[in-house]
Amino acid sequence: MLSKETLAQFRVEPGAKFHLKDHDPRQLTEKALRRLGKDELKEKAQEVVRKNLAELAQAQAMLWAHDVHSVLIVLQAMDAAGKDGVIRHVMTGVNPQGCRVHNFKQPSSLELDHDFLWRCQGALPERGMITIFNRSYYEEVLVVRVHPEYLERQRLPAGKRDERFWEKRFESINAFERHLTRSGTLVLKFFLNVSKGEQKRRFLERIEDREKHWKFSAGDIAERRHWDAYMDAYQELLRHTSTKWAPWHVIPADHKWAARALVADITANAVHSLHESFPKATKEQLDALASAKKELLGG
Amino acid sequence: MLSKETLAQFRVEPGAKFHLKDHDPRQLTEKALRRLGKDELKEKAQEVVRKNLAELAQAQAMLWAHDVHSVLIVLQAMDAAGKDGVIRHVMTGVNPQGCRVHNFKQPSSLELDHDFLWRCQGALPERGMITIFNRSYYEEVLVVRVHPEYLERQRLPAGKRDERFWEKRFESINAFERHLTRSGTLVLKFFLNVSKGEQKRRFLERIEDREKHWKFSAGDIAERRHWDAYMDAYQELLRHTSTKWAPWHVIPADHKWAARALVADITANAVHSLHESFPKATKEQLDALASAKKELLGG
Repeated sequence: MLSKETLAQFRVEPGAKFHLKDHDPRQLTEKALRRLGKDELKEKAQEVVRKNLAELAQAQAMLWAHDVHSVLIVLQAMDAAGKDGVIRHVMTGVNPQGCRVHNFKQPSSLELDHDFLWRCQGALPERGMITIFNRSYYEEVLVVRVHPEYLERQRLPAGKRDERFWEKRFESINAFERHLTRSGTLVLKFFLNVSKGEQKRRFLERIEDREKHWKFSAGDIAERRHWDAYMDAYQELLRHTSTKWAPWHVIPADHKWAARALVADITANAVHSLHESFPKATKEQLDALASAKKELLGG
Repeated sequence: MLSKETLAQFRVEPGAKFHLKDHDPRQLTEKALRRLGKDELKEKAQEVVRKNLAELAQAQAMLWAHDVHSVLIVLQAMDAAGKDGVIRHVMTGVNPQGCRVHNFKQPSSLELDHDFLWRCQGALPERGMITIFNRSYYEEVLVVRVHPEYLERQRLPAGKRDERFWEKRFESINAFERHLTRSGTLVLKFFLNVSKGEQKRRFLERIEDREKHWKFSAGDIAERRHWDAYMDAYQELLRHTSTKWAPWHVIPADHKWAARALVADITANAVHSLHESFPKATKEQLDALASAKKELLGG
């Protein structure tokens, strides 16, 4: 487990003046690299992931048994930042009965005929479950902000699409998440912060590796041309939607294993903090157990 | 991997005269026990589960990459037969991004206002995904058949609730599964065949173990009183709904590890048979990759 102080530096403080450029995608690792060397660092990170996986599996079993809280993990990032890898490595080993991943693709016509939070509702975690949104309603203040022409398809009431328009979207999101947390949902939000150079390296890797060809789409390159606009949009959303009840974490993501270890550690800690043990039986339940035992042994 | 002949004996042949009493819940294991002893057998079974897990994880990755087929696994059994354990051990290790578990609870009023297959539709696997139904629409010819008073809540058109009524339900189910397989879904169905004595032993274990108290509900004991009626209903459904396109497997379930190994083996084999490799890029895709590379290296 990393210390609370170490983990805190990745959390975006609500209301704080937040500048994305203060967050180095290689940060944590460069420091550690000097101390440990690359192989040892990767091994250390893998060990953190393994330990937290066991912790998370146990925490998830208790979450399921209590059936009171649920967990929503929001993952946002540029392409090739490592979202899929985080899901595979951090969550593979958690009982799939209590864990669900939801990918949000281009909205359908039916979805566009509703408010922008609507299509997420059906995918929210039931009590006892962990749900991961691989991309989420935050795309509505990211890709839609970078490509304002997408707004037209949403057929919204007339009005200016100025800064205040986007602030109202942030307000809607904050109120939505506040409501979820009030109802027992723990909301964890991660932005995997990859650098433009590292994205280029990973794209080229996908192009060279035949087994990864299927992962590549021409659209990925097109979006890369809007890199700066995306960074502005991310900075805005991180400033406005990191709240006490649902804070954002900015995860340095240029080193995959370091990113996975951080997400694993923060997630396991947070889910674990919901319950300390399995639920204890009430007086009524103990009576029911006793009479069940009597019937079983008698018949 | 177990041999095809060994696996075939657990499949219910379509149209064959099927008798549940010919299937011994301890079958496979008793024979193997004589040869190997308990500890060695458990170890062997765990090894089969581990090997198949790696195989299944790989098969799932290819399923996801191709995005053509999907897999629906139907798990049915009496209480405490080991459904949750099968899910935990056979599927934990598959990327949760491509695997989803759906539990069907008591139908809601909205669900009761529709045909009995309706509520399953939204939970069916998308292309590229594996979905497990932990209980399923088969409850409609099990618990509903054992408790025909539940039918009243479904407000069906008038008519006799005789044998023909249940045969029509089997016809609806078979046609539904035929349609799914035509559309690219592989349907795998498992009945975990536990004995009444072993269920009693497991119920008592849950009653004695404080950590398992939450798993026990008085309703479980109530259903046990209808054991014979359930066995009749299972025999009927196995006779009528084991089809060429969606065969049933009867898994001896008195020994948990043996049951898990069998389900793991059958599942990994079946999913693996869908694809032999990752998809190859088409001419158009290769061109797109080349021009993406040019842009990346240029800019």
